Amino acid sequence: MSHNTFGYLFRVTTWGESHGPALGCVVDGCPPGIRFTLADIQGELDRRKPGQSRFVTQRREPDEVKVLSGFVMDGDGETMISTGTPISMMIENVDQRSKDYGEIARQYRPGHADYTYDAKYGIRDYRGGGRSSARETAARVAAGAIARKIVPGMSVRGALVSMGVKEIDRSRWNWNFIRDAENPFFTPDPDSVKVFADYLDGIRKAGSSVGAVIEIVAEGVPAGLGAPVYGKLDQDIASNLMSINAVKGVEIGNGFEAARITGEENADEMRMGNDGKPVFLSNHAGGVLGGISSGQPIVARFAVKPTSSILTPRKSIDTEGNDVEVTTKGRHDPCVGIRAVPIGEAMVACAIADHYLRHRGQVGRQ
Amino acid sequence: MSHNTFGYLFRVTTWGESHGPALGCVVDGCPPGIRFTLADIQGELDRRKPGQSRFVTQRREPDEVKVLSGFVMDGDGETMISTGTPISMMIENVDQRSKDYGEIARQYRPGHADYTYDAKYGIRDYRGGGRSSARETAARVAAGAIARKIVPGMSVRGALVSMGVKEIDRSRWNWNFIRDAENPFFTPDPDSVKVFADYLDGIRKAGSSVGAVIEIVAEGVPAGLGAPVYGKLDQDIASNLMSINAVKGVEIGNGFEAARITGEENADEMRMGNDGKPVFLSNHAGGVLGGISSGQPIVARFAVKPTSSILTPRKSIDTEGNDVEVTTKGRHDPCVGIRAVPIGEAMVACAIADHYLRHRGQVGRQ
Amino acid sequence: MSHNTFGYLFRVTTWGESHGPALGCVVDGCPPGIRFTLADIQGELDRRKPGQSRFVTQRREPDEVKVLSGFVMDGDGETMISTGTPISMMIENVDQRSKDYGEIARQYRPGHADYTYDAKYGIRDYRGGGRSSARETAARVAAGAIARKIVPGMSVRGALVSMGVKEIDRSRWNWNFIRDAENPFFTPDPDSVKVFADYLDGIRKAGSSVGAVIEIVAEGVPAGLGAPVYGKLDQDIASNLMSINAVKGVEIGNGFEAARITGEENADEMRMGNDGKPVFLSNHAGGVLGGISSGQPIVARFAVKPTSSILTPRKSIDTEGNDVEVTTKGRHDPCVGIRAVPIGEAMVACAIADHYLRHRGQVGRQ
Amino acid sequence: MSHNTFGYLFRVTTWGESHGPALGCVVDGCPPGIRFTLADIQGELDRRKPGQSRFVTQRREPDEVKVLSGFVMDGDGETMISTGTPISMMIENVDQRSKDYGEIARQYRPGHADYTYDAKYGIRDYRGGGRSSARETAARVAAGAIARKIVPGMSVRGALVSMGVKEIDRSRWNWNFIRDAENPFFTPDPDSVKVFADYLDGIRKAGSSVGAVIEIVAEGVPAGLGAPVYGKLDQDIASNLMSINAVKGVEIGNGFEAARITGEENADEMRMGNDGKPVFLSNHAGGVLGGISSGQPIVARFAVKPTSSILTPRKSIDTEGNDVEVTTKGRHDPCVGIRAVPIGEAMVACAIADHYLRHRGQVGRQ
Repeated sequence: MSHNTFGYLFRVTTWGESHGPALGCVVDGCPPGIRFTLADIQGELDRRKPGQSRFVTQRREPDEVKVLSGFVMDGDGETMISTGTPISMMIENVDQRSKDYGEIARQYRPGHADYTYDAKYGIRDYRGGGRSSARETAARVAAGAIARKIVPGMSVRGALVSMGVKEIDRSRWNWNFIRDAENPFFTPDPDSVKVFADYLDGIRKAGSSVGAVIEIVAEGVPAGLGAPVYGKLDQDIASNLMSINAVKGVEIGNGFEAARITGEENADEMRMGNDGKPVFLSNHAGGVLGGISSGQPIVARFAVKPTSSILTPRKSIDTEGNDVEVTTKGRHDPCVGIRAVPIGEAMVACAIADHYLRHRGQVGRQ
Repeated sequence: MSHNTFGYLFRVTTWGESHGPALGCVVDGCPPGIRFTLADIQGELDRRKPGQSRFVTQRREPDEVKVLSGFVMDGDGETMISTGTPISMMIENVDQRSKDYGEIARQYRPGHADYTYDAKYGIRDYRGGGRSSARETAARVAAGAIARKIVPGMSVRGALVSMGVKEIDRSRWNWNFIRDAENPFFTPDPDSVKVFADYLDGIRKAGSSVGAVIEIVAEGVPAGLGAPVYGKLDQDIASNLMSINAVKGVEIGNGFEAARITGEENADEMRMGNDGKPVFLSNHAGGVLGGISSGQPIVARFAVKPTSSILTPRKSIDTEGNDVEVTTKGRHDPCVGIRAVPIGEAMVACAIADHYLRHRGQVGRQ
Repeated sequence: MSHNTFGYLFRVTTWGESHGPALGCVVDGCPPGIRFTLADIQGELDRRKPGQSRFVTQRREPDEVKVLSGFVMDGDGETMISTGTPISMMIENVDQRSKDYGEIARQYRPGHADYTYDAKYGIRDYRGGGRSSARETAARVAAGAIARKIVPGMSVRGALVSMGVKEIDRSRWNWNFIRDAENPFFTPDPDSVKVFADYLDGIRKAGSSVGAVIEIVAEGVPAGLGAPVYGKLDQDIASNLMSINAVKGVEIGNGFEAARITGEENADEMRMGNDGKPVFLSNHAGGVLGGISSGQPIVARFAVKPTSSILTPRKSIDTEGNDVEVTTKGRHDPCVGIRAVPIGEAMVACAIADHYLRHRGQVGRQ
Repeated sequence: MSHNTFGYLFRVTTWGESHGPALGCVVDGCPPGIRFTLADIQGELDRRKPGQSRFVTQRREPDEVKVLSGFVMDGDGETMISTGTPISMMIENVDQRSKDYGEIARQYRPGHADYTYDAKYGIRDYRGGGRSSARETAARVAAGAIARKIVPGMSVRGALVSMGVKEIDRSRWNWNFIRDAENPFFTPDPDSVKVFADYLDGIRKAGSSVGAVIEIVAEGVPAGLGAPVYGKLDQDIASNLMSINAVKGVEIGNGFEAARITGEENADEMRMGNDGKPVFLSNHAGGVLGGISSGQPIVARFAVKPTSSILTPRKSIDTEGNDVEVTTKGRHDPCVGIRAVPIGEAMVACAIADHYLRHRGQVGRQ
């Protein structure tokens, strides 16, 4: 990736820090004639918004998006139609409450980017983590809302499949439940809610934090997107997911499990379907064979580490080289992985939209 | 990634199929004054060369590299000195034995890119897998041999840490053993050789195949390489590793394990060292904090799936849409993950070399 | 160039149309620690602002820039210090007076991008020329204000050297006069003001328009920036200048004149200077030899066509394919080339800043 | 441009020096199914080959191209069909006659890149100009031969329109004459041959050199390629032409002349044609309006400076800082502009092919 831009034909450039005036992104290369509404974008943003349950940070960020360019209004006064020029979107920061950042400015929090940031730049905006803030991901979600419109018939959905040592039961997977008002976790397993809630309450009350694994599934992706090596579809999905804060691992299809089984078990057999397309008898590959989409659902998973913002004092050093004990106060997500679900969806949607255009450019058909 | 080029300032463009006249790469952006020998490159290529034990494919590919541009010879007649212009390297294909590709041309092997290749391009060079051949990785290894010279004091080493259901014992980790002549597996655990050998003999005799997990460790990487989001060092390492054939998952540091533990367990505590640099009390982060190198060893792992070239007949379809049973004959690696070790090293070395130059460009110091 | 982004390490992404809510740019890859003020940027913007004399459009665009990210405030409350993260700048559009765009929406103005825009996108924001508006250049000037700070000791200045059939007298060249309040033309020749004024008054009153040639000179550029072929410094300067609306030609040094003279006349002889650097006895090359800066002043010129917004009726067609006569009413610059001076400076500054960082990345010294 | 790669979807990476083992290029992003023959490529290369008349260098370079990857052979055993993977082409250097480069190694030739090369890299391959050799352009011509096949119905032709102070008479323009065996100059004006011949004989015998202006015309380019600002078609054509050695200026359409005339004179009027496409009544714009192709012929011109390799002694310095007199002996083109004609064609073809694919990617139709 080049700087703060990702994608090749569907390109997203993001900017902004947690505590500056605003943050946003520029979506460049969007085809003309794509129809979307402000509500489409705002709806996605609201899914990752803090403050919606006791399990996420209580910061209040309305995250109201403005679209500043790249569209004309349809006659209905509501639908925006892309013109093919850059779509700029901005979200103003409103909850910049004044506080003393003295300790954060001086101490390197273990597990955070504080030390490495200084090692790189020699200067940093330490307020709220600066560019490393989870807040930056709002721009990704806004871009993803546009990306979702590019590939006709595509849907991209995500689910939290494990939190710390607790996992869902896949036999109870229910996509509809994920958007249920009673489900603060993006879990597809209704029975898991109580388990996760009890577990996370314990974590939260202890001032601790815990990681999670998120699974993203893209359906309706045509066969042929990607490339055999380099510019592989799964590679660019992995890169996009790894670009998210706190992500430490990515898998496609059965992922690391593929390393444990034999070729007989792993390869997905095929039969000819009635519609002239092959039917795969399994989907260990996660919808990507040799870097190119097969027409099966694309399946990717990523691991989010526990935030290092915890109440337990930890050993560290300060900017002057003194040994210190660091305790991170303030309003933090006990499991940042929860809100990573719509972010992961957005990043996968962007990767596929990009490859859809790239394929069309090189090969000229879908 | 853009087409068959990876890297941003240290850029590698690879080309070539398994059964064409040659394959190779162009390394562009190499600093001037880098000293290397043909033996440096050939030595790395020989590590991934087939035919070195009964556990890898018996194809004979001498993989003799030629350097065609981008250097002047030193007075010693042996050392090449980079001039800052593109370094072109070529490996001619010699083992293009004539054979009947009829079935491979007509049948889609399950788990291979045959079907998706046709879905994308509508045409393919089916001989030896074309561009999807493992042979393409020779170009990566050649490029990696140059990349290893860019960051002063850096070493990049890899090891096979599991094969199918068998794992090494990390308490016996011995880097020196990896280059031991008695070690056909790149395993760092001497006691594992017999275990892997017996296991893989069984796999091989059954005409089956098995996957593997490879771990790459880069030491001597200065703090400050990468970026907080996008162009993260770990992201580009993951992308580079995912660009390799048959890779289905990538982890940095403790990877997916990070999703299972708490913030207290996961964050690496720091103390001030005697040399004015922090000492980390653990390395769960794998040497990357917030996308930027911390000065600790960089640790990445990747999962290689079992090759789908197996003797057991599998259900599939042919190019005309008929249901068929496919059996893959010929000389194949029972565990392609073994030879992936030097490839993974090369890809990590390229990612770090690139970020070393990028950091120098933006920040102007190391 | 890739979409609406230019530069490789010092990257600028611009967005926005003439009549949308705002326009702006994201400057990515700026080194950390660069000090600038809002006044630095606003000052450059004010130089290209309409409405400053009767010779430019009378539209009122305050062009007030906001910096939204990528900096921390210095203790003086005025100086911004770049942090190395993306610098987002925005200029809100205020003069969006409601008017009937019926004819412009339906008729293709000859010489304008109206027809080709529709041929490409099938949809366009015809208000004020949409993305093709001269207003877009404000974003370039804002980015250029940052670029000017990157190379220590560099100054980039521009001058209008001809307007239609009228030319300056180079023997009277006076850089200081260009910023003189009595000089509405960015001409370096004081005696030319009356000539240009009379000439342009005639053009303006006739409802006509005229072109211009602009010369940009960058001094204090160190030797060694650029590359021998591709990524040549002069190539990227030319590309940047050609990316400006209405530019139809670019020259470096003596440019097209070089094609008319002999090798003896053209090559710049050298002698050794007292400071250990060569002294060139002439500068036909315009400061670039074989794509690489020589340490001499960089000299580039570009030709701006006359705007096609004129009062004289011209033959054209409308969106439904009917033959029509088009007359462009409204407030237009009789010579858009005048305001192109600060724009050209900005684009040259961006190109050099980018190569400065690229050189540092590859070679590691200045 | 990024390093030695140009183009965005149709990407060309070139490598090689004048006196190394070989030079070549990798064409990446070519659509699958493009049919070409070795003779197509060799034919273009032969047009720029030295030694074909007394007016060009007498070096003997067979310039025999090999295609190493990215194709399958058609059944006819002659036609190559692109597969969509990288097409690698190589030309081996055969005329590397041993000679004493002592003076060239130590002295900076005025007007050459010798000094700036050293200022940049601190090391250089001085034999034959290294990377700055005109020989590098063979790779461009080979790539252009593929590019010519991408846009259905497109033809790209070039002509020398002036040499030093001598110009053609455009009223005698005859495209067919350019490939006439009696025409060593690529001039479209039959009567100009004797004029140019006499003029250049004088230059040649004096050991001098002279510049030239080349015009490239691309016909059959569909309307809609390019973008309104940045990624303008004319910008990328200009950038590609400026990337050629010794080019000092570029114009599109009437170019610098546009700066001298009024809006009435400059804008191309339109009428509706019988085929549902507009008919332009003139083509001052050179086929590009607002950065986007209009369907008219694309017209670009570029100025080539006289080579600085002349017999007259010139003042210079050597690598140790001594003042010296430099005389360049050896076999040189008295007018390098002549052989620049096929090179310019190739670079324009590459730019248009690239935008054809980019347009298809973003907009999905031609």
